[in-house]
Amino acid sequence: MDQEMKPARSLSSIAFRGGAFRRETRSVPAERAVAISVGGSTHAVMMASPADIEDLGVGLVLNERIVDRFEEIDAIEIVETEAGTDCQVRLVPERAETYVARRRQMTGPVGCGLCGVESLELAGRVLPEVTAGERVSPERLVRAMDEMSAEQKLSRLTRAVHAAAFHKREGSMVVLREDVGRHNALDKVAGHLARNGVDPASGFITITSRVSVELIQKAAVMGCGLIAAISAPTELAIAEAEAAKVTLVAVLRGEEFEIFTSPDRIEGAQEPLDADETLLA
Amino acid sequence: MDQEMKPARSLSSIAFRGGAFRRETRSVPAERAVAISVGGSTHAVMMASPADIEDLGVGLVLNERIVDRFEEIDAIEIVETEAGTDCQVRLVPERAETYVARRRQMTGPVGCGLCGVESLELAGRVLPEVTAGERVSPERLVRAMDEMSAEQKLSRLTRAVHAAAFHKREGSMVVLREDVGRHNALDKVAGHLARNGVDPASGFITITSRVSVELIQKAAVMGCGLIAAISAPTELAIAEAEAAKVTLVAVLRGEEFEIFTSPDRIEGAQEPLDADETLLA
Repeated sequence: MDQEMKPARSLSSIAFRGGAFRRETRSVPAERAVAISVGGSTHAVMMASPADIEDLGVGLVLNERIVDRFEEIDAIEIVETEAGTDCQVRLVPERAETYVARRRQMTGPVGCGLCGVESLELAGRVLPEVTAGERVSPERLVRAMDEMSAEQKLSRLTRAVHAAAFHKREGSMVVLREDVGRHNALDKVAGHLARNGVDPASGFITITSRVSVELIQKAAVMGCGLIAAISAPTELAIAEAEAAKVTLVAVLRGEEFEIFTSPDRIEGAQEPLDADETLLA
Repeated sequence: MDQEMKPARSLSSIAFRGGAFRRETRSVPAERAVAISVGGSTHAVMMASPADIEDLGVGLVLNERIVDRFEEIDAIEIVETEAGTDCQVRLVPERAETYVARRRQMTGPVGCGLCGVESLELAGRVLPEVTAGERVSPERLVRAMDEMSAEQKLSRLTRAVHAAAFHKREGSMVVLREDVGRHNALDKVAGHLARNGVDPASGFITITSRVSVELIQKAAVMGCGLIAAISAPTELAIAEAEAAKVTLVAVLRGEEFEIFTSPDRIEGAQEPLDADETLLA
C-alpha cells in the first residue's frame, strides 16, 4: 500500500524584497529517505518524494534489470521507520536465486571489491536496442508537454520537483509522477505502467528535466522508443540514445523542439537530412 | 594532473520551429563516467564533466568523510580508460588502515549485507554543527550571485550544467566549478579550496541548482556556514540545515531572496522575528 504522506509542507521564511526583510510562507516538497531492499538486502537508498513508493520499487527493479518482467516480483511491502521508508521487494524463488548469485559474483570480501576500471566497465553496460517504431506527430508532442504541465500540481505549489509522464501514441496522458529526484519520477512512471499492464512501447515519455544518460538507459530498458524533455541533453545521453535507437527530443518549449537521435519516429522530420547523412556523423 | 578534455561538443540536431523542420547546431556539455577509487577499491562511480577531476576526487573523499583533512590524502592519480576516468586516491598509511577496517565492518559476505532499515539509519548520519558565525550583508549575497552568473561559461554555451562557487565573506569569488552533476560541482569547489589551503569557514557557497539534503551535508562537512541557491530547497534540506546550523538562503533572484534557517548570519535579518520565535517552530 502506498503511504499517505503530505506531498508538501508549508513553512516560514524571511524574505528580502525591495531592500527590506519580512516574514513569508512557502511550500516546500516533502522528501524522505527511501531504501529499496531486494530479498532482504539493500539495493539502493535515495531521497524521494513520499508518494507512490510501490511504483518506485517496481520501476527501479525493472529499470535496473534486477528482474526482466513484473511477474518476477512476488510481493512488495512498505515498512515505515523513523529513519525513512523501506520498500521491501520479494522476488519469485527462481529469480531470487539468480539475484543472490549475481550479487555474490559482483562482490568480494571487502566492499564491492572492484577496482575503478572494472566498475567503469560495469557502468558502461550494453543497452537493448529499442525496436518499437511507430511515428508521433510534432503536434502530438507539443500537446503531450502541455498536458503534463497542466497536471504538475506539486511543481506549481513548490517549484522544486521534477516530473515524468507517459502518453499513448494516439490518445492522452496515462500517468504523471512528480518527485524531488528526476530518476525517481521516471522509475515511478515505469512502475505504474508495469503494475497496470501498459506496454511502454505503445507510447512515449515526457520529462521536465535535463536529459542525462541514466534517463535514456531507463527508457531503453522500458522498451520505449521516444523520450521528450523540456531541458537539454548531455553528450553521453545523446550517444546512448543513438546506440539504443531511442528518439531523443529535447528543449521542447512552446511549439518548438529539437531532435537529437533517430528522427524516424517523428512525422516529417526525415526531410532535412540528405540521403547519405545521419544526425551523428 | 587534471585532464584536458573539451568541456562541450558541437553537434547537429533537427529543429522544429514555426511548423517546419530544419537542421541546427547545438553545444552540449561533455560528460564522462568517473570512478573515485580509494586504496584500490571503487568508492563511487558517477557521470561528471571531464574537468577538474583532482578537485572532484579530493572534494568527494573530504565531503564523504573518508578523510578528515586534506593532508590525509597521500597522492591522486588520474587514469584514463576507454570506459571512463579512474581517479585513484591513495591515503596516508594510518588512514588507509582505518578505511579498510570501516569498509570491512560495513560489508558482509553478500553485497553490502545491510537490510533496508540499517541502510536508512546509516544514511541519516549526524552532521557536525557549523560554528563559523560572521555576517554577510544582503548586498554581498546579491553581488556574489551576479559574479557567479557572469562566469558560467559552460552554462552559457550549453544551458545544461550546474555551477557551485565559493566567495570570501569580504572580497570576491574564489572559485567556480561547473558540472553536469550539481553534487560534483560542489565537491569540485571543496577540493579546490582544500588543495589551495582556503578555509571554507572564511566565506560562503553559491549554487545554481535546487537545494537537496546532500548539498547541505557537504556544506556542513566543509564547515561552511552559509549556502545560497538560485532555486528552492527541499524539506529535508531545510531540516538538515536547521540541525547543522547552516544558514540556508534560496530563491535568490535579482535582488531578492529568502532565508530558511539560521538568519543570524545575514545582516539585518533578525528583526522580523519576535524575541521568542524561531523560523522552524
